[in-house]
Amino acid sequence: MNAKPGGGTGAYAAGDLPLAGMADAVRLLSAEMVAQAGSGRADHAAALSDVATVLLAQSLSFDPAKPDWPDRDRLVVSEGHGAPLLYALLYLTSTGDVEAADLGDYRQLGSRTPGSPERGHLPGVEATTGPLGQGLGMAVGMALAERLLNARVGDGLTDHYTYVLAGRRGLMAGLSQEAAELAAELELSRLIVLVEDRHPADDAPSEARLPVDRAARFAAAGWSVRHVDAHDHAAIAVALAEERLTRQPSMIACRTDRGDPLGSGRAADDLARIRQAFGGTGGDFKVPAEIRAAWRSLGRRGAAASLRWGRNLDAASIEARRLFVAGGGLGDEAREALTAIKASFSVDRPHLPTLQSTQRVLDALAPAMPELIGGAVAPVSRTSVRARSQRLVERGSFQGSFVPFGAREHAMAAAMNGIALHGCLVPYGAMRLTFSDYARPAIRLAALMGLRAVFVMTHDSVGVGEDGPTQQPVEQLAALRAMPNLNVYRPADAVEVAEVWLSALQQESTPSVICLSAQSLPTLRRTASTEVMAGRGGYLIAGATADRDVTLLATGSEVAIAVAAGERLAADGIKAAVVSMPCFELFRIQAPEYRRRVLGTRPRVAIEAGVRDPWNALLGERDVFLGLDEFGVSGSPADVYDCFGLTPEAVAAAARRVVA
Amino acid sequence: MNAKPGGGTGAYAAGDLPLAGMADAVRLLSAEMVAQAGSGRADHAAALSDVATVLLAQSLSFDPAKPDWPDRDRLVVSEGHGAPLLYALLYLTSTGDVEAADLGDYRQLGSRTPGSPERGHLPGVEATTGPLGQGLGMAVGMALAERLLNARVGDGLTDHYTYVLAGRRGLMAGLSQEAAELAAELELSRLIVLVEDRHPADDAPSEARLPVDRAARFAAAGWSVRHVDAHDHAAIAVALAEERLTRQPSMIACRTDRGDPLGSGRAADDLARIRQAFGGTGGDFKVPAEIRAAWRSLGRRGAAASLRWGRNLDAASIEARRLFVAGGGLGDEAREALTAIKASFSVDRPHLPTLQSTQRVLDALAPAMPELIGGAVAPVSRTSVRARSQRLVERGSFQGSFVPFGAREHAMAAAMNGIALHGCLVPYGAMRLTFSDYARPAIRLAALMGLRAVFVMTHDSVGVGEDGPTQQPVEQLAALRAMPNLNVYRPADAVEVAEVWLSALQQESTPSVICLSAQSLPTLRRTASTEVMAGRGGYLIAGATADRDVTLLATGSEVAIAVAAGERLAADGIKAAVVSMPCFELFRIQAPEYRRRVLGTRPRVAIEAGVRDPWNALLGERDVFLGLDEFGVSGSPADVYDCFGLTPEAVAAAARRVVA
Repeated sequence: MNAKPGGGTGAYAAGDLPLAGMADAVRLLSAEMVAQAGSGRADHAAALSDVATVLLAQSLSFDPAKPDWPDRDRLVVSEGHGAPLLYALLYLTSTGDVEAADLGDYRQLGSRTPGSPERGHLPGVEATTGPLGQGLGMAVGMALAERLLNARVGDGLTDHYTYVLAGRRGLMAGLSQEAAELAAELELSRLIVLVEDRHPADDAPSEARLPVDRAARFAAAGWSVRHVDAHDHAAIAVALAEERLTRQPSMIACRTDRGDPLGSGRAADDLARIRQAFGGTGGDFKVPAEIRAAWRSLGRRGAAASLRWGRNLDAASIEARRLFVAGGGLGDEAREALTAIKASFSVDRPHLPTLQSTQRVLDALAPAMPELIGGAVAPVSRTSVRARSQRLVERGSFQGSFVPFGAREHAMAAAMNGIALHGCLVPYGAMRLTFSDYARPAIRLAALMGLRAVFVMTHDSVGVGEDGPTQQPVEQLAALRAMPNLNVYRPADAVEVAEVWLSALQQESTPSVICLSAQSLPTLRRTASTEVMAGRGGYLIAGATADRDVTLLATGSEVAIAVAAGERLAADGIKAAVVSMPCFELFRIQAPEYRRRVLGTRPRVAIEAGVRDPWNALLGERDVFLGLDEFGVSGSPADVYDCFGLTPEAVAAAARRVVA
Repeated sequence: MNAKPGGGTGAYAAGDLPLAGMADAVRLLSAEMVAQAGSGRADHAAALSDVATVLLAQSLSFDPAKPDWPDRDRLVVSEGHGAPLLYALLYLTSTGDVEAADLGDYRQLGSRTPGSPERGHLPGVEATTGPLGQGLGMAVGMALAERLLNARVGDGLTDHYTYVLAGRRGLMAGLSQEAAELAAELELSRLIVLVEDRHPADDAPSEARLPVDRAARFAAAGWSVRHVDAHDHAAIAVALAEERLTRQPSMIACRTDRGDPLGSGRAADDLARIRQAFGGTGGDFKVPAEIRAAWRSLGRRGAAASLRWGRNLDAASIEARRLFVAGGGLGDEAREALTAIKASFSVDRPHLPTLQSTQRVLDALAPAMPELIGGAVAPVSRTSVRARSQRLVERGSFQGSFVPFGAREHAMAAAMNGIALHGCLVPYGAMRLTFSDYARPAIRLAALMGLRAVFVMTHDSVGVGEDGPTQQPVEQLAALRAMPNLNVYRPADAVEVAEVWLSALQQESTPSVICLSAQSLPTLRRTASTEVMAGRGGYLIAGATADRDVTLLATGSEVAIAVAAGERLAADGIKAAVVSMPCFELFRIQAPEYRRRVLGTRPRVAIEAGVRDPWNALLGERDVFLGLDEFGVSGSPADVYDCFGLTPEAVAAAARRVVA
């Protein structure tokens, strides 16, 4: 009972653990949390308490004293209303860090036990969950990260499973289908999803007669699927043991009739029985000592395993140790690679789409940053975001470091979150900027959790051209900039591309979006400044400074237009300063004196191929914004830019008007 | 060959039509469009030209002279790169309105043939498509609308099919799974999806060995599924005829090896052969007269059917005629119902969440507006957005007018678009505001197409409380307001709720978002003004006007806070005007003089439980914004509002500072 399962294929023996009492403790604690809070739901906990108990007793490898032990099994509770279940498990297995008072504070402001599981509040909460399908999506990323690491460091350091306790509703979200197909495509055999299969359905009349067999759907996607009674401990144990051995990802549908909300019928009877057996009076989170001891014993065997892991790490290669020790920070080698490629751009002065400059950056970066894992959705040209050194991750083969995610923006973003959550790896993934809308709920979770993930957005303006307005972003920059704790970069040239990657990868607790052009852009930066100017968020890139008549502000592909406008104005004797603003969020946190120096006094003319909203913070009533307040149109990129007045001539004309 | 299929179960006889030549014409025209444009793709057209030809020859009921004939079969080409296929079909069947010059202008600025199908550019384009999964999602809505109308007006006026020509990639998007499950749940038997089933795969290495059998996935969802050879006319005809008779929605996977892009192998051989047969020189869109005549003959039988339909309409009941004749405009009865409920709110002065006020509005509105079709996703309390008079739409039964969409925000929004596109019905659907992120790509298409659809967003602020930041919108208002051609309403009280519905339903070519509170709000409006003040976008709701010291601006649940702050300030002798801003977009288009009168001179203090971005347009550097620049927290609604300083005290304190 104290042995870590060998090679990931065995299991702990549950031995003579009092499983029934242990499960009852989960049931009771979660119900009492909900009763004390006066809101929340314990139905998911009531339905899955036996499943969770058997999972922890038999399979889950974890060390409560070291909740961040890298080789722990991951357990994701994907339903927001599964929080009481998770908190009960964390309390019962805790060595003292989680207290009954935490359970009593469930759903109170400032507590460690918020209404939905939130990473960072209580040790052992692997992910912030609640939004439908995200838990499964992140678990796919975690299971992928485990295999990627295993391929790099071997069984001695990475050899664990990813489990999900899921509800039916989350599986209705389209994201769950994308994630399930991705898991099957990659053959993530160590992903095991335990789904509450509630009968009869509690919610929608139409759902009660659902023709959709979700288990069949997962089977069609290539999963190993089986059904068990959610309250039959032996059957659950067998299912877990066998599903750990399959080559496919596994779904275990756990049939239950105990999903009624607290207070009705069976659940209430259960509670009365448990309280009598436990001797509590209700509301006191009282669990008999022997049950508590049994739960704590589970943590002790994990402690032994984590000790062994530590010895393995000491004996491991430098390369392997670096993956675990670096903690995700940007290494010197990667930093030097980015600095060198930036310097080379200053010399070569390439005239390329920033998407192509990105490929050159990645060619330099990837060999210097082994923890970097790239990916892209199918419609995005992979040659531009995949470094030459990056081999493809393929089905069941994880030596590669570039993941083909298929046409699945949302699953890619959610999986990136899972990779970042897993730790030791840094994910980036590319999609078209317009279709950031498809991935937005996952990007939001990255921002909420403060993950180091880089969302690469290609085709970042109406410069997409002929594909027309459905493919042309207009409001996406504004929508992404509106999201808290997200840095949105839009580099203007190759030099800025290198700087932006450096800045993004340095962010330890803020995800990044990097928006890249499909059209070619000149290199604008004149000197190979060692300062990472793009990391300032905004800076003077051309033109007059102190005695300027007007300031031209732009980002990305429009900076070249502003620079050209500045040259036209200079010919007229108008001194224009040109400011590149690759990251509003970083500019906002610069010292006021720096910002004043860059922005100058008014008047200002701003140009960006998108809506005005984000610029209002920088523009007054006299200032001018040139952009779009409508959707784009199909036509050649040049025609489309002309048609919306996004030209040097238009910028110069606007500047002349505001100066006059 | 001239008979409209009886009862929707028959089919046209293809007779001795030269199907092979007709399909070759589609293949040639689409390839020549792409060649002339120098970009775009004809592979989808090459793969599905036979399928499309048999579909139009045998099954599709349409009248090229009356492309808006309400009882036409709907044909959705869901892939953006399917545009040449669609344009070729529309040209070949046209009675003259679509010309060869249109094909020659494919992908040019200002042409009627943009890079992706865009509704409104060319008659017969049923929907703007391209973004993955949206075509299927809208088709589900069209098929649902057909059944809803049929249940109201009978076979004589509504008795048609919805066909989709789809690609594999669109089926990878999660939305397609949501839409497919929804179609099966509702038993939309008249939805038939023809999928290009390409062998071998052309794109991703991983896709070539996909373990995912998408046909099996649709079968698991409850669809009738079959496979045909995409180039076997007889087999396609049989498949279509039989699938029209199934009770389930149908997928026909059309296996093809002709999906290579233009210029390579088989496709090039095909083109050379066709050019020789047709006698063209290439690039001249030349089709033999007999082929052209055969294509035009298809339209003539549709003309006969649409004539019969017109006679049926003349003979129909007033109620039925009204559905078709009103054209979607807001009727007098509905307008009066909304005016009456608004007046009653002014008297009753309810203290309710605006979500509950909405239910009262819908109770009044629904009986007066038979074309109104409601719906909600599963986690949203249906009792609050479903009128008492609205029966549920159930599986295979369409007398009801409220659709339970399951936990599928994205499919709901896409289906709403389809209902609006179908015509004669006006959809609204409710989800949580936070999860508007899940539906954003579909909401964007509604805005791009200018559809009359009302997206109801519940739980519209951190006032959600205990469920925590994953459920609390913070940046969603900003993100939605950034979208072109979308009116975002956030009513402050019951009176504004009534006004906002009136304003939203009056918009003929702009979709609406209505954001509603979960927490109770007092009725603030003092008089039962007959003017729809919320329709102005912003107006003075309380406090001083002309000689004000400060202007307090707010929306939704924060207006009551601003009003309370104004009262505190008045006690201090500070004259504060309070402005409610329920719709930024409508306020922006008011006369400058009106806006000046409402906004007054500075200073201003704005309060909204969200990010600052949208307010910068109204605030100067001296002004103050009280909101959130971070994600929310779990806690009671009152605690959360306190914790972020969203209180009358904080607003009054800020006002005192800016006035001083």
